Amino acid sequence: MTYSYEQLRDFTFGMLTKIGCPEDHAKTATEVLLSADLRGVDSHGVARLSGYVRLWEKGRINATPNIKVTYETPSTAVVDGDGGLGLVVAPFAMQVAIEKAKVAGTGWVSVKNSNHYGIAGYHAMKAVEHDMIGISLTNASPLVSPTFSKERLLGTNPISVAIPADKQPPFVADMATTTAANGKLEILQRKGLDTPTGWVQDKEGNPTTSANGVKDGGALLPLGGDREHGSHKGYALGSIVDIFSAVLSGANYGPWVPPFVAFLEPDPNPVGKGIGHFFGAMRVDAFRPADEFKSHMDNWISRFRGAKPTPGNEKVLIPGDPERELEAVRMKEGIPLLEPVVKDLTELGERFGVKF
Amino acid sequence: MTYSYEQLRDFTFGMLTKIGCPEDHAKTATEVLLSADLRGVDSHGVARLSGYVRLWEKGRINATPNIKVTYETPSTAVVDGDGGLGLVVAPFAMQVAIEKAKVAGTGWVSVKNSNHYGIAGYHAMKAVEHDMIGISLTNASPLVSPTFSKERLLGTNPISVAIPADKQPPFVADMATTTAANGKLEILQRKGLDTPTGWVQDKEGNPTTSANGVKDGGALLPLGGDREHGSHKGYALGSIVDIFSAVLSGANYGPWVPPFVAFLEPDPNPVGKGIGHFFGAMRVDAFRPADEFKSHMDNWISRFRGAKPTPGNEKVLIPGDPERELEAVRMKEGIPLLEPVVKDLTELGERFGVKF
Repeated sequence: MTYSYEQLRDFTFGMLTKIGCPEDHAKTATEVLLSADLRGVDSHGVARLSGYVRLWEKGRINATPNIKVTYETPSTAVVDGDGGLGLVVAPFAMQVAIEKAKVAGTGWVSVKNSNHYGIAGYHAMKAVEHDMIGISLTNASPLVSPTFSKERLLGTNPISVAIPADKQPPFVADMATTTAANGKLEILQRKGLDTPTGWVQDKEGNPTTSANGVKDGGALLPLGGDREHGSHKGYALGSIVDIFSAVLSGANYGPWVPPFVAFLEPDPNPVGKGIGHFFGAMRVDAFRPADEFKSHMDNWISRFRGAKPTPGNEKVLIPGDPERELEAVRMKEGIPLLEPVVKDLTELGERFGVKF
Repeated sequence: MTYSYEQLRDFTFGMLTKIGCPEDHAKTATEVLLSADLRGVDSHGVARLSGYVRLWEKGRINATPNIKVTYETPSTAVVDGDGGLGLVVAPFAMQVAIEKAKVAGTGWVSVKNSNHYGIAGYHAMKAVEHDMIGISLTNASPLVSPTFSKERLLGTNPISVAIPADKQPPFVADMATTTAANGKLEILQRKGLDTPTGWVQDKEGNPTTSANGVKDGGALLPLGGDREHGSHKGYALGSIVDIFSAVLSGANYGPWVPPFVAFLEPDPNPVGKGIGHFFGAMRVDAFRPADEFKSHMDNWISRFRGAKPTPGNEKVLIPGDPERELEAVRMKEGIPLLEPVVKDLTELGERFGVKF
C-alpha cells in the first residue's frame, strides 16, 4: 500500500495538532518524521507516530514545551527540551548550533529533557544549507550490550555527519553504532529468517543468529559484532555518543535512558532528565574559503565514486547516495507502508477523529 | 629483549637532535613516540623511528619546521606544519585547540603539511589535563578499500576521544576505523597464521584470510568487514576522518596521501600539502559545572565496568583500560622490543653515532 507524501504529511500534522502541539511545532515535527519515510528509514517515520501519541497519553511527552537554552559560551550551549517531542526539540537545538557557528566558527549543543528525535541525518543536513558541516548524535533506550557485557547498557546511538559539496550532492553519513539496526531484525522476523553472525546475542550473552534474539531478552551487538572483528570500537563509538548527548547535558545515560515504548516504565531513580542529543555545526569557511573546500569535496566524491568496484558490485557509493535516490523516487511515486502500519494509523486516526 | 623507558627515551632524543631537530622539538617528539610503546601500540613507537629518519634523508620531513596558524576564528584554526614531524606538529595544534577552548568553550584545529603523528590517543589525552574532552583524528597512507571498492583509497584513519572523570581514570577511545590494524596482520604473518574473516581483501577485491593479503596488493577492510556486517559504516567513519583532517585544512586526502615509507614516492600531482590531522577540545564546564560532569562520568564508568560479563569473560572494560594498565607495567618493568626492531635501531644508532 502506497501513500503520497502529502497524504502522510497531512495526517501526521492533523494528529499532532490534535494532541495539542502548536501549529509551528506540528509542522516541524511532521517534516522531520516524514523525512525518515522518504529516505527509507521506515522504522523512524510514520510507523512511530502512534508510539509518540501513547507516550503523550502517559504524560511522558509534553505537547507544549518551553524549549530553552539554559547555559552557553560563545561556541557551546545546553538546551532543555522541557519533555517535548525530540522532533521539535532537535531542530531548535540544531538552529542554536548554526547561530553559534555564524559568530564563533563552530557551535556545539548538548540537549537534555528530550525524546526520540527521528532520523539523525535530518538534523545534520540542516547545517549543509548554510555551508556548514553538520553533526547529529542521540542516545536511545538500552538495547545494545557493550563488548563482554551480558547486560544492555547502550542504545543504537547513531552518528550522522553531513558535509557540503559544490556540484556533487552532499556527503551524508547516518548510521547506528551497532552492526545492524533494529528495523532490519524486524524484517527478518517477519520472513522467518536468521540474522548473519555478529548482529545479536541471546539473553545469556552468547552469540545467536535468531532474529528474535533481542525480543527474547538478548541484545544488539556494537558495530564489529565481536572482539575479533572490532566490536570494542562500536562499543566505544556508542559510548561517546551517549556521553556527549547526556553526560554533557544532564540527560539520562546508559541503562537509565527512558524506554520509547509506553508500556515500559522509565527507571524510578533517573540520573538525569529525559533522553539526550548532541549537535555540531562547523562553518567550512572557518577553515578555508568555502568555494575551495567545496570544490575539493567534489573531487573527493568523484574519485571515490569512480573507484574500480569489487567483483559483483556495480559501483562504490558515497554515504547518502542510497537515501537521496530513494527520496526522489518516493516523493514522486509515494511511500509504501506495511499492512500493520496502515492498520495502526487507521485505528489511531479513528480514535482521534483524524482521517487517514 | 626489554629496554627501560629511559634507555629508549635517551636514544630517541639523541637520534632526533642528531638529524637537526631543536631540543624542545626532540623532547616533545620523543614523549609522543614513546607513549605508543608504553601503551602497547608497538607499531607506532620506536619501531617507526628509522622510518622517520629515512623520510628526513629523502627531504620529506623538515627537522626545523616553522609551524604556524595560517587562519583562525574564535573557535577554529588551520595550522601549517611546514613539513615537520607530526610528532611535533600535532602537539602544537592540540595546544591551539586547548587555548581556543579556554576562551570560546571549544577549539577545533585542522592541520595540513604534516607527517605521521604517532598514536592518536596521546594528543586527545592532552585535553583531559585541562578538564576538557579531547578529540584527535588523522589521515594516513591509503591501505583501506571502501565498501565495494577494489582500490585502496583511505588510510587506517584513527579516531581518538578522551573524556575526563573524577576518581575514575579517564575514558580514552583510540581506534583505527578498520576491522583490524595493520600491526595485527604483521603478528599473524610472523606466526604463519590466517586472519579472521572481514579483515582483508585480496588485490582482485575478493575477501581473503591471508595475512599477506595487504602486502600482496590487497587492502585492509573498513570496520564491519563487509556490507552485511556494516562495513559501509567503517568506510563512512574513515571518510569523515579524511575530510576533517585534509579537505578542511588543505592537506592531501584519499589516495593522494603521501606514503609513510621512504621507498614509495608521493603522488607527483598532489591535491594538497602533506598529510592532515584534526583536533578538538571541549571544556566540560562550557556545558555544565566540571565537578557535576566528572561525578556523572564516574557513575557512567562504574556502571559499565560493573556490568555482568558474558560467559568466559571476566569483566567489561572501559575504553583506555588495557592501555593504561600496560603503561604502568612497562614504565616499571620495561618495554619489550622484537628482534628485528632491536637490529634496526642498533644499525640506525651506528650509522648516526648514537649509542643504542
